[in-house]
Amino acid sequence: METALIEWLRRRVPAHAQLPLGIGDDAAVVESLDAGRTVVSTDMLMDGVDFRLTEADPRRVGHKCLAVNLSDLAAMASRPTAAFVSLALPRKGGRALAEGLFEGILPLAEDFDVAVAGGDTNSWNGPLVASVTVLGSVGQNGPLMRRGARSGDRVLVTGSFGGSILGRHLDVRPRVREALRLADRYPLHAGIDVSDGLACDLDHLCTESGCGAIVDLANIPIHPDAERLAAMRADGHPPLDHALGDGEDFELVLTVPPDVARSMLTEQPIDVPLTDIGEIVAQPGLRARDTDGRVRRLEPTGYQHEFG
Amino acid sequence: METALIEWLRRRVPAHAQLPLGIGDDAAVVESLDAGRTVVSTDMLMDGVDFRLTEADPRRVGHKCLAVNLSDLAAMASRPTAAFVSLALPRKGGRALAEGLFEGILPLAEDFDVAVAGGDTNSWNGPLVASVTVLGSVGQNGPLMRRGARSGDRVLVTGSFGGSILGRHLDVRPRVREALRLADRYPLHAGIDVSDGLACDLDHLCTESGCGAIVDLANIPIHPDAERLAAMRADGHPPLDHALGDGEDFELVLTVPPDVARSMLTEQPIDVPLTDIGEIVAQPGLRARDTDGRVRRLEPTGYQHEFG
Repeated sequence: METALIEWLRRRVPAHAQLPLGIGDDAAVVESLDAGRTVVSTDMLMDGVDFRLTEADPRRVGHKCLAVNLSDLAAMASRPTAAFVSLALPRKGGRALAEGLFEGILPLAEDFDVAVAGGDTNSWNGPLVASVTVLGSVGQNGPLMRRGARSGDRVLVTGSFGGSILGRHLDVRPRVREALRLADRYPLHAGIDVSDGLACDLDHLCTESGCGAIVDLANIPIHPDAERLAAMRADGHPPLDHALGDGEDFELVLTVPPDVARSMLTEQPIDVPLTDIGEIVAQPGLRARDTDGRVRRLEPTGYQHEFG
Repeated sequence: METALIEWLRRRVPAHAQLPLGIGDDAAVVESLDAGRTVVSTDMLMDGVDFRLTEADPRRVGHKCLAVNLSDLAAMASRPTAAFVSLALPRKGGRALAEGLFEGILPLAEDFDVAVAGGDTNSWNGPLVASVTVLGSVGQNGPLMRRGARSGDRVLVTGSFGGSILGRHLDVRPRVREALRLADRYPLHAGIDVSDGLACDLDHLCTESGCGAIVDLANIPIHPDAERLAAMRADGHPPLDHALGDGEDFELVLTVPPDVARSMLTEQPIDVPLTDIGEIVAQPGLRARDTDGRVRRLEPTGYQHEFG
């Protein structure tokens, strides 16, 4: 703990109804919106892996560290209430870096009415590590889980995919409001957010649900960044490969019964487009339907932390 | 996320009544013991700062990472319910290290009936960073806060102090049961656990309460490790200096009205000794009463993370 930084935070962090004690005790006390259950997400981000401080403004990094957690709560159709921010700061320039990170965290927290409720600030000789934990309330129709998909469900996605490394992986727009609105209006079966990669995360959802999926490749919404990245790299990977495997799009993948899917696609009830990209089937594993109608195995590409 | 490690954890982590969904979704759902308020503590520990993997078994490191959070909840007289463990693992040997850490975390969690509810596992080229977040219930007479001390209160401590670097800083015994028992039986005014250092943490408590304290130096319970460390170092710092400033004792500092203090000292209702080390006074700051009765300013020695 560095006293001066804690004092700065106390002045800078707004009071919040969910935070009766404010910050600065041994632990925080968070008022729940609904009794009984708390939804908790936690993500650790590291300099050189999830961002590069040599290239990105600390405010964008701070924004990402909170946003990826909010995205996890969106995937559960949960309403975030409080965030905890722990930092391992490089000794040199650590104070200014911490302030920069919080200048990215606090506006996003305010935007989603999330109380910045505590954390732990440390310094060391290593690179920046930021670990954020977010609490949320389950909500009326929550929690939405990965395990709820059923054979025959349609697979819908928000937004478009690929090429997030060009900048969108930092400027994450967590689909919290979209998820709450959809869970409020429609009987969603299962959900996940795309962090590792569209194919990889759909595969996670299928594995948890004990089923598989057939993806219509022609229907994958490809982000312009995926086109740009494919053109820049010119390594033979078309934009579709980037859409399926790049990850960090932080869009939602949802499964719903076919009639519900039809309503959602017609009504388009959120600001970002909903697209039908395929169906849930009983046979485990991912398959892809090509434009010529042929079905083949689809590799669940995406990011995995490798260690031995 | 590394799939094989998640699978290992799913097999290894016991089911828990507070954890209706188990682990492995985008976020965890935790059943609260009491409705309305959740107590949350979070601590980040780094290799080379809070432990050295070159010297300490990963199980002891894992134990410490959870124990320091449980100690924070003890300081709030709160009952821990669920823990979240996020790791930045070195790529080489990361899987074995993660398993070792959890082999230290899981027995401690079981001992305190805490559900290991989720987390985030990453790999990188840096040293190990572990960030643990613990949720708890406020309890009947909680939360106990730093800000409740009043002039005239006696200052009581559990256990003894100093020299934790010789090993006790790893083998932390969080005073959770002791705190719950004391809060159940006595009207405690304020509390903090000793992580930065006895003098430093008492100073934190006083600052939050808007008062000061006079410490009776002759009454500070000095741990045998403080004697050993003073003898080893032979740098002119007596054992008392170590007791006041070393930190990481993870004992409790409590303030109570004088009549309550008398009952507590007579009854000694917990397994670890309670000792009266001084009094809370209106005048801000820490002072020390020497054995000859003279009162002088006491430096709030202890650990601070330094960065510029």
